[in-house]
Amino acid sequence: MCGIVGMVGHDSVNQEIYDALLLLQHRGQDSTGIATAEANGVIHEHKVKGQVREAFRTRDMRALLGNIGLGHVRYATKGTASSEEEAQPFYVNAPYGIVLVHNGNLTNTRELTDELFHKDRRHLNTSSDTELLVNVLANELQASISGLQLDPEQVFQAVARVHERVEGSYAAIALIAGYGLLAFRDPFGIRPLILGVRRSEDDSRDEWTVASESLVLDNAGFEVVRDVEPGEAVFIDLDGRLWSRQCAADPKLLPCSFEYVYLARPDSVMNGIAVYESRLRMGERLADTIAKYTPKDAIDVVMPIPDSSRPSAMEVARKLGIEYREGFYKNRYVGRTFIMPGQAVRKKSVRQKLNAMPSEFAGKNVLLIDDSIVRGTTSREIIQMARDAGAKTVTFASAAPPVRYPHVYGINMPSRHELVAYNRTIPEIAEELGCDYLVYQEVEDLKAAILEGSDITDLDMSCFDGRYVTGTVTEEYLAWVEGSQES
Amino acid sequence: MCGIVGMVGHDSVNQEIYDALLLLQHRGQDSTGIATAEANGVIHEHKVKGQVREAFRTRDMRALLGNIGLGHVRYATKGTASSEEEAQPFYVNAPYGIVLVHNGNLTNTRELTDELFHKDRRHLNTSSDTELLVNVLANELQASISGLQLDPEQVFQAVARVHERVEGSYAAIALIAGYGLLAFRDPFGIRPLILGVRRSEDDSRDEWTVASESLVLDNAGFEVVRDVEPGEAVFIDLDGRLWSRQCAADPKLLPCSFEYVYLARPDSVMNGIAVYESRLRMGERLADTIAKYTPKDAIDVVMPIPDSSRPSAMEVARKLGIEYREGFYKNRYVGRTFIMPGQAVRKKSVRQKLNAMPSEFAGKNVLLIDDSIVRGTTSREIIQMARDAGAKTVTFASAAPPVRYPHVYGINMPSRHELVAYNRTIPEIAEELGCDYLVYQEVEDLKAAILEGSDITDLDMSCFDGRYVTGTVTEEYLAWVEGSQES
Amino acid sequence: MCGIVGMVGHDSVNQEIYDALLLLQHRGQDSTGIATAEANGVIHEHKVKGQVREAFRTRDMRALLGNIGLGHVRYATKGTASSEEEAQPFYVNAPYGIVLVHNGNLTNTRELTDELFHKDRRHLNTSSDTELLVNVLANELQASISGLQLDPEQVFQAVARVHERVEGSYAAIALIAGYGLLAFRDPFGIRPLILGVRRSEDDSRDEWTVASESLVLDNAGFEVVRDVEPGEAVFIDLDGRLWSRQCAADPKLLPCSFEYVYLARPDSVMNGIAVYESRLRMGERLADTIAKYTPKDAIDVVMPIPDSSRPSAMEVARKLGIEYREGFYKNRYVGRTFIMPGQAVRKKSVRQKLNAMPSEFAGKNVLLIDDSIVRGTTSREIIQMARDAGAKTVTFASAAPPVRYPHVYGINMPSRHELVAYNRTIPEIAEELGCDYLVYQEVEDLKAAILEGSDITDLDMSCFDGRYVTGTVTEEYLAWVEGSQES
Amino acid sequence: MCGIVGMVGHDSVNQEIYDALLLLQHRGQDSTGIATAEANGVIHEHKVKGQVREAFRTRDMRALLGNIGLGHVRYATKGTASSEEEAQPFYVNAPYGIVLVHNGNLTNTRELTDELFHKDRRHLNTSSDTELLVNVLANELQASISGLQLDPEQVFQAVARVHERVEGSYAAIALIAGYGLLAFRDPFGIRPLILGVRRSEDDSRDEWTVASESLVLDNAGFEVVRDVEPGEAVFIDLDGRLWSRQCAADPKLLPCSFEYVYLARPDSVMNGIAVYESRLRMGERLADTIAKYTPKDAIDVVMPIPDSSRPSAMEVARKLGIEYREGFYKNRYVGRTFIMPGQAVRKKSVRQKLNAMPSEFAGKNVLLIDDSIVRGTTSREIIQMARDAGAKTVTFASAAPPVRYPHVYGINMPSRHELVAYNRTIPEIAEELGCDYLVYQEVEDLKAAILEGSDITDLDMSCFDGRYVTGTVTEEYLAWVEGSQES
Repeated sequence: MCGIVGMVGHDSVNQEIYDALLLLQHRGQDSTGIATAEANGVIHEHKVKGQVREAFRTRDMRALLGNIGLGHVRYATKGTASSEEEAQPFYVNAPYGIVLVHNGNLTNTRELTDELFHKDRRHLNTSSDTELLVNVLANELQASISGLQLDPEQVFQAVARVHERVEGSYAAIALIAGYGLLAFRDPFGIRPLILGVRRSEDDSRDEWTVASESLVLDNAGFEVVRDVEPGEAVFIDLDGRLWSRQCAADPKLLPCSFEYVYLARPDSVMNGIAVYESRLRMGERLADTIAKYTPKDAIDVVMPIPDSSRPSAMEVARKLGIEYREGFYKNRYVGRTFIMPGQAVRKKSVRQKLNAMPSEFAGKNVLLIDDSIVRGTTSREIIQMARDAGAKTVTFASAAPPVRYPHVYGINMPSRHELVAYNRTIPEIAEELGCDYLVYQEVEDLKAAILEGSDITDLDMSCFDGRYVTGTVTEEYLAWVEGSQES
Repeated sequence: MCGIVGMVGHDSVNQEIYDALLLLQHRGQDSTGIATAEANGVIHEHKVKGQVREAFRTRDMRALLGNIGLGHVRYATKGTASSEEEAQPFYVNAPYGIVLVHNGNLTNTRELTDELFHKDRRHLNTSSDTELLVNVLANELQASISGLQLDPEQVFQAVARVHERVEGSYAAIALIAGYGLLAFRDPFGIRPLILGVRRSEDDSRDEWTVASESLVLDNAGFEVVRDVEPGEAVFIDLDGRLWSRQCAADPKLLPCSFEYVYLARPDSVMNGIAVYESRLRMGERLADTIAKYTPKDAIDVVMPIPDSSRPSAMEVARKLGIEYREGFYKNRYVGRTFIMPGQAVRKKSVRQKLNAMPSEFAGKNVLLIDDSIVRGTTSREIIQMARDAGAKTVTFASAAPPVRYPHVYGINMPSRHELVAYNRTIPEIAEELGCDYLVYQEVEDLKAAILEGSDITDLDMSCFDGRYVTGTVTEEYLAWVEGSQES
Repeated sequence: MCGIVGMVGHDSVNQEIYDALLLLQHRGQDSTGIATAEANGVIHEHKVKGQVREAFRTRDMRALLGNIGLGHVRYATKGTASSEEEAQPFYVNAPYGIVLVHNGNLTNTRELTDELFHKDRRHLNTSSDTELLVNVLANELQASISGLQLDPEQVFQAVARVHERVEGSYAAIALIAGYGLLAFRDPFGIRPLILGVRRSEDDSRDEWTVASESLVLDNAGFEVVRDVEPGEAVFIDLDGRLWSRQCAADPKLLPCSFEYVYLARPDSVMNGIAVYESRLRMGERLADTIAKYTPKDAIDVVMPIPDSSRPSAMEVARKLGIEYREGFYKNRYVGRTFIMPGQAVRKKSVRQKLNAMPSEFAGKNVLLIDDSIVRGTTSREIIQMARDAGAKTVTFASAAPPVRYPHVYGINMPSRHELVAYNRTIPEIAEELGCDYLVYQEVEDLKAAILEGSDITDLDMSCFDGRYVTGTVTEEYLAWVEGSQES
Repeated sequence: MCGIVGMVGHDSVNQEIYDALLLLQHRGQDSTGIATAEANGVIHEHKVKGQVREAFRTRDMRALLGNIGLGHVRYATKGTASSEEEAQPFYVNAPYGIVLVHNGNLTNTRELTDELFHKDRRHLNTSSDTELLVNVLANELQASISGLQLDPEQVFQAVARVHERVEGSYAAIALIAGYGLLAFRDPFGIRPLILGVRRSEDDSRDEWTVASESLVLDNAGFEVVRDVEPGEAVFIDLDGRLWSRQCAADPKLLPCSFEYVYLARPDSVMNGIAVYESRLRMGERLADTIAKYTPKDAIDVVMPIPDSSRPSAMEVARKLGIEYREGFYKNRYVGRTFIMPGQAVRKKSVRQKLNAMPSEFAGKNVLLIDDSIVRGTTSREIIQMARDAGAKTVTFASAAPPVRYPHVYGINMPSRHELVAYNRTIPEIAEELGCDYLVYQEVEDLKAAILEGSDITDLDMSCFDGRYVTGTVTEEYLAWVEGSQES
């Protein structure tokens, strides 16, 4: 999982990109990077491990000169060696000098690596699929250009070729030195990307931004233009002129359902769907399922597991007519466990992140709402905490259906046998988690909750239903990817 | 405002103190420090600017050897030059080697500085009142000792002398190299300090901790023994034996009411009063006042300003029978504004910390609950955000009474003329803030809400009522302190 | 001025390259870098400002994996913005991934920059001519390859094309990821490059190194094979097999005379000429000129300006039959002048680097020998120091002729009007320097001293005689370069 | 071995102390520190591992405010744990605030440690004898003061008490916050300390400096006043007024002979004796001994081992009438050996520091002159290098006598059994070193060479003759110290 942003402004964009990355920090906290370019084409870049707040010193920011730039926050996945080397953006110096950031995951990396090395003679220095993507783009751009000046048409041809060669999910932003900013989204639009503008009143040059989430636009005073469409490419030159083109043969929007369940900030609107409202609707539908599967009067109080399940939980409470309370307090400051010579690593428990308020639990039948259940280890600890705090019975409900399949489109998830719902019935999962009752959202309800009121017809729900929309996701691929996942 | 912790354990205490400081991080984020001592008396210390997470590298932690130690997080106040030099703990090397951390604020610093320089010939290298405190303690300890070995009785004599010389608020922990850990609290117990134990089953040596808040004890598996009493000193030697003594002539518990209003974490219990529950009661009483001062049907929905006003807001909603919603989303990742050459400093607005969910505001009469109103600038921006998001009318209510006086006991507050309630009536404040209706908690209600069910009879509420319990707080002092405040 | 080294070994080469850079540190102290490659082609690089000793931490070295690598030390020139960004090596990722280091200076940079941008569509991110060189090489390599595997023949074709496109001086080493190490020297062999081998006894794989100076080979136990010839390219693959080819149309060896005068370490042998012995011969010939131009008995004692003029001075003393003494002590530890707020920059005088031993000067007629005189400011200060220490008369002699022209082949020298010898006769220079007598080596004597016993017939002596061997050095070019010089 | 400097100036002294430390860098390169004090008594300090050049960043220097200060460079000894914690200066905060730097070694550390802990109740946090010294001084100062103001008389009383309690060698400088700078030297004046002044013309305030070596004074434009006398204390107040007093009962000057042999820079004058000239005289006398013990015509050429033996070697050559040549080149840039995972530590050989010029050795009988021989390992390697470079025979001569006893007065030397001369005759040593002939300076000749022309009557030559001037150096002490030496 990653967050990306690109910007073409009147003045220096470094601070605005920095601010945007802070707003996208929830999408990845392992590494971050910014690249900018000056009008003369000189590119500046700074990328390091860690969160945005710690990554950029004044001297780093001062070096990021230029009115055009892009940024990235990254959630590293276990398969990837060194967070530092895999940090984005990635740069290639020909043609023109291209810097690229990417949110998503390519699923034909093995074929692409072979082709790039043998056919295109390009050097890949890491196992990052982003390095693959920038090299495929560079290669196709090299092939499509003719004449002295790069023109948007040639850029769109290159993106069309990228769509042909690359499989998987990719929302990407590229800076082409001396020319402009390119943004494109895979033909299924799995990962989000939204376009905003700050119209110039007294100046013919508009300012543009593209970002993973709309709240970046809201916060910086950009007006939402629209989501970049699946398969579409958008090119903005240094003078703020914008071109766009559908570059895919057969695009079809299938946005990732997990963005609505958990990833996105509630104050974002993605593909026209307000995330917060979709979560309220998940709560509404979950309430019905809870009513169906739990004994009447089994619940005295409804509580969210903070923070992302709050809207759903509040709606469950309202719909069921049961009191809503906040029984858990979430600790915001998370630190490290240092390995001292001769000491074993201590396991950090959930208790360092959550604390229970005993007075809310004592003697009560509590219903805990979480957004989803993946490994189940956290849920098990939370249920135990509720009991320790005095709960009479604990009912646990998930606003998402059981997660039973790997997520290969850019969200780091464990391999199948680590998923608590893998090969288990709901009663078996309940026993595993230690709760009195366990309720999951129905798959169709999740889909309906997200899509209600939208004219989008389908979603990527592969981790719930095992239906992978891109061609290369075979059982053999899933087995391979379970060793080394990419976001 | 600061957070402190001390520990005497079986093994290395560095990681546990680090974990404790993370839990106390909400009490101060400007600098942090840890000191430990080995059995042979060698002291190790590391203190720097910034948050705990960024302050300690593996090599720093590895150097913090020893089974006894203490730690500090600090909220720097505007009057203090360099956060690095004022970072705690402070060390003096005679007698014995003493390291001390302190939460509070001394109010006779000018007199003490004079005495220490002229009479005690001690060198003060900073303007920190903590450096004053450790030097007064060292001086009195030097005076009270006789014979070869330090005994607890001598330590208590020294604390008694500290109480005589020092005025103001102070919860302090000191490590005496080669001897043990000393914790003491001023005769009014203004700032909190709680004692916990981990009983040893198979070992005669118990492990002890003292900390600003009880959640540190809960989290690390310490059982709460009790709060350190006002004027009391507790001494724990290297073998885990504990002595305690009342060292003040006329102690009287007057805990700081602001801990309950805002400072403390809701899952802490302070002076026997559960912070979370006191906030629920504040909501209950505030509801009555709201009902009294706002027209019937003026409110469609109740919303908290996250995070600390959530319990009060929920209780207001319940009591008034109005729907509770979370209309604001709080951004967790806060960054910096870099000053680029030739650019002016941009003001960071509240909008970078809070975002409104339009669907919750559109066309509604909203009641916003905050824990308190100090300068009023944030409240004004939030009220405007609610209007921008579509609110029909905005009622604003504060769970604390108007803040009209400086806080001189360890909380950094602006000088009087910067307080929005200073010299203004409530309607004038409402106009200043731009809300339709404004409701404040009554002073007596706040007091009752905190003390209900407790046998404590009084509180420090000086910033609400101007009544200062320590002798030296005169009008002249207030004028002086408004230039240079200390926590 | 720069120093370069490349190595293909059996084991990790990081420490050996580091050791080599320390030995080449006298060739540049402003920035340094190392790149290595693993057998699988993954490239690792670390480059920063400062000296070798300060530049590489343990973690940096641990990341420099691989049995093939190269390194660089750089002397930054005034025209170049940021030492950090101009630090070598430079990397391009297609074809194959190439990292290159370079000692020298290209003289047709303006034309190359244009061609690369417009024709080759390659992005240059700095004003470094090394970035130009690696891009020209990459472009020509891209053009020359066909088939799946790179073969040495294609590499040599590319170097031949580089010789056609590029003008100036360049001794360069390139690492081609997955293939091997390439070293080549410009068709005039202006800058040095020497090849060494460590023959394997029990293994068929030899180990190879190429470096700016032979002492690197001596020190690391490599046997000198020969200097790389002007125009020649040498390619060593990952298995230690070596190919070489003359790639220039009309090569002719014209090594830089300044290497012998000042740059190279005395224990190096360059182009078959021992530097130390050439300096002895310079002393011998200088003695004759001194005898010719100074009054008999004008000199009591001969002293070197440490360190590089020591051999010449010793030989002057021997030939003239005058006592040799060391009257100056050179301070090895050089620091910085910090600019404090509100203070002007203090000029660091020569006295911080040299100190005079009064007993050697008192009442004596001293002859001071230096290797060369450039600006004259240092000489003037030294002459004054000798007088202050009590010298009766001061004769100053330079082992090199007057420096009257810019050096455009990789040594940073001031523009012409800053050269003390520019437009001045020797008596005028003597007056400028403040010495009683001034003697310069004759141009022909310097040439003869260097070449004696060698079959090399000519040298680059352009800074002494204004004769530039490469085509593009016009008066217009010299005027341009005096603003922005490159090494 | 350490270097120290103190200064009282008109303006900020940070840069001048920094420059002085660079000039003293040859006395210690393991750690360094500076402390300064402002007129109001606030002390600033920065001390870290490493050389001066790397230790102070601009921000560190900017924080070192004040017109009075002191500095230190340290050569760490094997017995001492962490260079960082033992870095000087050391600080105590009562009385007044004292910061102290020290060159030397106390020999009754065990007794002092006991006394300080039990009697004076002072905490020692390291095993540094400098921490002992500052605490003894602080304790005695505390005892001697009376009345409100510190007066010089009280300071001198305290120093007198220090002389009574402390044994060993100590040249020390202390800054007393708010009062001034104190410098004192042990009653035998074993380690050097010299006083300089910059007279004010238009201002009544003179500027003063005290330093380990006179070249610091020369370089910064201070006029030499005199050496601080053995047992004497000098006190300079903040207004530049100076007091001095003999504080020892029975002072007698016995300066360390090793300063003249090796430690001091040749351009220093110590105790009235010019170091350079004493080395010339060592050469003169050594020449006679060489003539006595080597066959006539056994030597074709005389060579120094650079740098410190150069003056002696030159004089040997002159006296013997044999040609002087420089056959070795010394590499100035010394780096580290990195320990890579799974690799053994490689031994750095002398060859990385010295290189031989073959033409000077080929077929010749060479006489190598070194300043002294300690372990003999370096000498053995150098002799082998001479042979490898083609020398026919190698004669080795040491300007100092055989080192057969530990040095306990502040120079780090190995324990006795590691000294090549320990329990060996000269022929046995020659065999051990592998030279054809070996000549040592006679003990009496060294003494005479140093003292010639001076009215000093005796020297500390304990490492040559085993005669220790301070009382506590017993055989038991020597055995103990051989485990943990201090400088």
